[in-house]
Amino acid sequence: MRADGRRADELRPLRLERHYTRHAEGSVLVAFGDTQVLCTASVEERVPPFRRGSGAGWVTAEYGMLPRATHTRSDREAAKGKQSGRTQEIQRLIGRAMRAVFDLGALGERTIQLDCDVLQADGGTRTAAITGAYVAAHDACSWLREQGLIQAWPLRDAVAAISVGIVDGVPLLDLAYTEDSACDTDMNVVMTGQGGMIEVQGTAEGAAFSRAELNQLLDLAQAGIAQLHRAQRLSLGLSDV
Amino acid sequence: MRADGRRADELRPLRLERHYTRHAEGSVLVAFGDTQVLCTASVEERVPPFRRGSGAGWVTAEYGMLPRATHTRSDREAAKGKQSGRTQEIQRLIGRAMRAVFDLGALGERTIQLDCDVLQADGGTRTAAITGAYVAAHDACSWLREQGLIQAWPLRDAVAAISVGIVDGVPLLDLAYTEDSACDTDMNVVMTGQGGMIEVQGTAEGAAFSRAELNQLLDLAQAGIAQLHRAQRLSLGLSDV
Amino acid sequence: MRADGRRADELRPLRLERHYTRHAEGSVLVAFGDTQVLCTASVEERVPPFRRGSGAGWVTAEYGMLPRATHTRSDREAAKGKQSGRTQEIQRLIGRAMRAVFDLGALGERTIQLDCDVLQADGGTRTAAITGAYVAAHDACSWLREQGLIQAWPLRDAVAAISVGIVDGVPLLDLAYTEDSACDTDMNVVMTGQGGMIEVQGTAEGAAFSRAELNQLLDLAQAGIAQLHRAQRLSLGLSDV
Amino acid sequence: MRADGRRADELRPLRLERHYTRHAEGSVLVAFGDTQVLCTASVEERVPPFRRGSGAGWVTAEYGMLPRATHTRSDREAAKGKQSGRTQEIQRLIGRAMRAVFDLGALGERTIQLDCDVLQADGGTRTAAITGAYVAAHDACSWLREQGLIQAWPLRDAVAAISVGIVDGVPLLDLAYTEDSACDTDMNVVMTGQGGMIEVQGTAEGAAFSRAELNQLLDLAQAGIAQLHRAQRLSLGLSDV
Amino acid sequence: MRADGRRADELRPLRLERHYTRHAEGSVLVAFGDTQVLCTASVEERVPPFRRGSGAGWVTAEYGMLPRATHTRSDREAAKGKQSGRTQEIQRLIGRAMRAVFDLGALGERTIQLDCDVLQADGGTRTAAITGAYVAAHDACSWLREQGLIQAWPLRDAVAAISVGIVDGVPLLDLAYTEDSACDTDMNVVMTGQGGMIEVQGTAEGAAFSRAELNQLLDLAQAGIAQLHRAQRLSLGLSDV
Amino acid sequence: MRADGRRADELRPLRLERHYTRHAEGSVLVAFGDTQVLCTASVEERVPPFRRGSGAGWVTAEYGMLPRATHTRSDREAAKGKQSGRTQEIQRLIGRAMRAVFDLGALGERTIQLDCDVLQADGGTRTAAITGAYVAAHDACSWLREQGLIQAWPLRDAVAAISVGIVDGVPLLDLAYTEDSACDTDMNVVMTGQGGMIEVQGTAEGAAFSRAELNQLLDLAQAGIAQLHRAQRLSLGLSDV
Repeated sequence: MRADGRRADELRPLRLERHYTRHAEGSVLVAFGDTQVLCTASVEERVPPFRRGSGAGWVTAEYGMLPRATHTRSDREAAKGKQSGRTQEIQRLIGRAMRAVFDLGALGERTIQLDCDVLQADGGTRTAAITGAYVAAHDACSWLREQGLIQAWPLRDAVAAISVGIVDGVPLLDLAYTEDSACDTDMNVVMTGQGGMIEVQGTAEGAAFSRAELNQLLDLAQAGIAQLHRAQRLSLGLSDV
Repeated sequence: MRADGRRADELRPLRLERHYTRHAEGSVLVAFGDTQVLCTASVEERVPPFRRGSGAGWVTAEYGMLPRATHTRSDREAAKGKQSGRTQEIQRLIGRAMRAVFDLGALGERTIQLDCDVLQADGGTRTAAITGAYVAAHDACSWLREQGLIQAWPLRDAVAAISVGIVDGVPLLDLAYTEDSACDTDMNVVMTGQGGMIEVQGTAEGAAFSRAELNQLLDLAQAGIAQLHRAQRLSLGLSDV
Repeated sequence: MRADGRRADELRPLRLERHYTRHAEGSVLVAFGDTQVLCTASVEERVPPFRRGSGAGWVTAEYGMLPRATHTRSDREAAKGKQSGRTQEIQRLIGRAMRAVFDLGALGERTIQLDCDVLQADGGTRTAAITGAYVAAHDACSWLREQGLIQAWPLRDAVAAISVGIVDGVPLLDLAYTEDSACDTDMNVVMTGQGGMIEVQGTAEGAAFSRAELNQLLDLAQAGIAQLHRAQRLSLGLSDV
Repeated sequence: MRADGRRADELRPLRLERHYTRHAEGSVLVAFGDTQVLCTASVEERVPPFRRGSGAGWVTAEYGMLPRATHTRSDREAAKGKQSGRTQEIQRLIGRAMRAVFDLGALGERTIQLDCDVLQADGGTRTAAITGAYVAAHDACSWLREQGLIQAWPLRDAVAAISVGIVDGVPLLDLAYTEDSACDTDMNVVMTGQGGMIEVQGTAEGAAFSRAELNQLLDLAQAGIAQLHRAQRLSLGLSDV
Repeated sequence: MRADGRRADELRPLRLERHYTRHAEGSVLVAFGDTQVLCTASVEERVPPFRRGSGAGWVTAEYGMLPRATHTRSDREAAKGKQSGRTQEIQRLIGRAMRAVFDLGALGERTIQLDCDVLQADGGTRTAAITGAYVAAHDACSWLREQGLIQAWPLRDAVAAISVGIVDGVPLLDLAYTEDSACDTDMNVVMTGQGGMIEVQGTAEGAAFSRAELNQLLDLAQAGIAQLHRAQRLSLGLSDV
Repeated sequence: MRADGRRADELRPLRLERHYTRHAEGSVLVAFGDTQVLCTASVEERVPPFRRGSGAGWVTAEYGMLPRATHTRSDREAAKGKQSGRTQEIQRLIGRAMRAVFDLGALGERTIQLDCDVLQADGGTRTAAITGAYVAAHDACSWLREQGLIQAWPLRDAVAAISVGIVDGVPLLDLAYTEDSACDTDMNVVMTGQGGMIEVQGTAEGAAFSRAELNQLLDLAQAGIAQLHRAQRLSLGLSDV
């Protein structure tokens, strides 16, 4: 039994609240337990220089954390004048994960900018961000269709992500912060709605891990992500499989 | 009658939700209508170099806006690598307003760091931030007292703020974004619970303004701030006057 | 009697020396007593991106202080790699004050860039800067007219500024540095030649201030600014009222 | 048959040249075919603030690429004033990989700073960097032992890394740049000499990948890394298994 | 005959005005014709980290140019967030020149910080800066002696600098801006009062220069610097040789 | 006899290895003894803004040092976020030296970007960089001619550089690091193949130097540079004089 009473293969209570703020074309508050991330999707009628004239669009992401989202306050990156390596790593991951399910040609020469801002952190902020950003991106695509700006639907599949890890020898799903700090191996898995893998990032924090452990973790993650995909569809009012 | 149906001297619906996030010693979501600011107060057991060894504490503030808090997305300051002049101006104002009601000696050699992050913007973010930050600071002081870290209560008075402005010749209280954009004169007023003035910042956007207009605006602001102080006391569970 | 022998409502000796340096279209050394600011106005045949194609011009300001303009040396902002919040606040104020009296349409699609650099500081640098920058801007407009670059005169009114404050309970005009450091309330007032108000920025440094005190300070400032406007006209060789 | 004539499971010609430069405690030029990385290990008798007084040491890495290491010149990061997200991601990866095999307590309160600078790039720079940095770190540890600065040997195991990927449906080992650009799935694997996994980072560039494909790639990587470990031992003059 | 009527070996009118501003321990306005530089010397009771505990002091310099010191406005370095390579080169030169005549041991463990800010530029700003900075440094040393802070006089010699160049085949002394722009070879020479050379920096702008030309330029410079040293002594009220 | 057994007027062993890396149009490893600098020349089909439309090209240089090129590790400039004043000074010098022998009109509207990266440092890195960069630039010009991109040969002359200095009263050629640290006067000389001077930068580190000493140093440098020019021609396979 885990500190919060969950089974090893149990997700934290999940919340996907659409239309959380007013201005963005997509705005979703995603919560994985006490981890809360506000994901907004903004449609911008321009693309980065390397895409200009291609007819195809772009999807990118930025990630931030409010200074006191964490147990002890972190310095504000805007005040320090630069984003940390961790922030950049996470926002690059979110961007890649989103682009993996987008048909950028169908999007047309415009950008969907995803902003994932952590209001409260308790482990798993990047996986929550990916899971919420997909729903925000879906809403932005619906807005584009309603505005008559796109003909073809630009999302080829859904995408969601979860963390798994081995804590005291036991593989656990969806690590909370204290579990994440204590784990030997930490893995983030990003998968499509069809069950394909987009990213697998496993890191040995202490001891190295074996192929067998890797497989256990992937099994856990696969089952967890399937639940996330169902929750995404439910939240978007799509008929479930 | 204003666009949102308010009278000229009417505040927008006010919301002061304490304990909005878990980790901070004070955490308040303040809403002035559609303007929503998350204000956290963090206690840090250190002071800036110029206060070291003084025995007295420090109170300071930082301000930020999520990129899509606004109608069109703004660049993320952390990604640009610097805070705008506007951001710095606002966070300096919040810090001064807070220090005006603090007994820094009673606080002891520690810092209360206020973070005011705008989740959604519709005008008046700095005045909402001051009004909410006071409540968060009050909670942080209560926490300090509960922990036995302070003997004397370090807040000498309450502080709140409101914007006023002249739009099409009519003085209005608590300007929404469209009113703010259209106004000739824009003023932010910060006052204590006792009715003393802390800051008066009036700016002619178009035509210059007269002493008579200044006085009308201050009358409006004074009445509005009195309501904000009552709401702060209510929110903090303090017996009203 | 004040430390330098002035009456409470007396300005420091004022100096407005035009053509102080050779290259700028307007170049004015303004001195309020020991505070000396070099204000240059540069005409540039381009406008910021947000004004392009509008047919109208732009007026903006930058402010700086030589490292040893002050009693103890301050770090050079160019060496630190960023402008302080104070610097940005002041240059934004100067820019707003200048734009308030400009007819940007009459200026045509060009920029007047004002640079206010403090050679020696003794309180009131921002008010001296505004007062001198107006004279430099006037010279730049005359230059534009002489060059045949403008048809209509782009200045609608004069603008000047002064500080006032309450020191030991006494309202004083045009604070020197030691007075500024000691004051309870500090106010900067920017007014047009016609007597309209452009900016009122009052700040309680210690105790809050009352409406009555605010009014006393505004009375003092109004009388002081009238004298500054006369000195500006005199310096520009304009017939006085 | 691959463009350079290799079999799918074949490494590029490997070179590990120790003592490549004079000053560093460890200095290794590693080449994976045309990819050449200079890895230096510097011993510094201090640790970062968060390790001070712990008695234990630290191992960290920085990564850079000469501007014309690549086909077309890239901007120099020092001239741009910041390291890219990619650079930071890679140097964080190298640092984690090295720390995974270090006994930081045995190292004592000092830092081994690894610098991995790419002289010529043809894909796989991060895996070459990890493989070479281990040899440089080993030399630095030998130097520490020769100097009598350490009692216990601080390396618990070897570490090496390789890239694998699926190109046109075929799993390939040790991708050259043109293969890397064309691949659907790209994976970097870091393993210890004992065969434990330290990092697995798989990314779908185009289509998602399956568990079966993941397993094929891991098999390839495991075999390749075993060869790298033999080469490391050979280069260090250690008796092979 | 030159554009301004000077002979080839003639300096521009020289001005060395001490006590130009009030706060600095030394403050000198130096003018070489239309080139005007304000040089202040600030005494600071601390030294850079690499000098701490040495008992000896440090002398360093910073250089800046007001944005409109030049014919067309240059960007403000503080606003751009960095000093140009040219600025850094010049301030390093000034610092080296000053240290060459200082007995840093006699100065004691304190710093003399020289700030050279160009108010108006017409060629030769770095040589004017060195010439004026010496006088400011001398005043700061006198102040130190008057305060009883030093026992031994810390200046071993005087230092001054001049530019020379070949324009249309003719060697000229003390180049004005238009001469500097047109010259084939440009040389800055820094010499002590005793006639020793501190810095010789000759640059071929167009054609290369010969040893014979180099010697002509050095002859010119030597004679010019002797005049500058006389002017420095006169300005400081020292009995001339 | 010097520490490394050289005569006073003897160069260190010189190495000019062309085609050191694959991608650049010119790539030369230059070694002056233990000082090793990789010089690459990259052809880019664009020019800086101030050259656009001129029909003429541009030649520029950047300089860097690997963190552990030196005896003790230096901070990585990319990680610090800025290039030091020394770095900027050196890269400006290299750029000027190269442009002095280029016919920029013959180059056509394109840029040759020289990158000089120090792999190992033992004094004289800037002079080695100039000497090697010329050979790399020559290879880039040959590439341009082979590609048919230029008609006329854009190099008017060769260029090379050497350091000289007075150590314990003895003028020495091509200073190694320990000699450079100990020298009273340090001079870098850049000359063309025809024997013209491009740059002479002499600095008194301790005592000032005399005209006679300057002449001794120039004699030494002239003879040394003549040898460097022969080595450049040999390396390029050009018939020697």
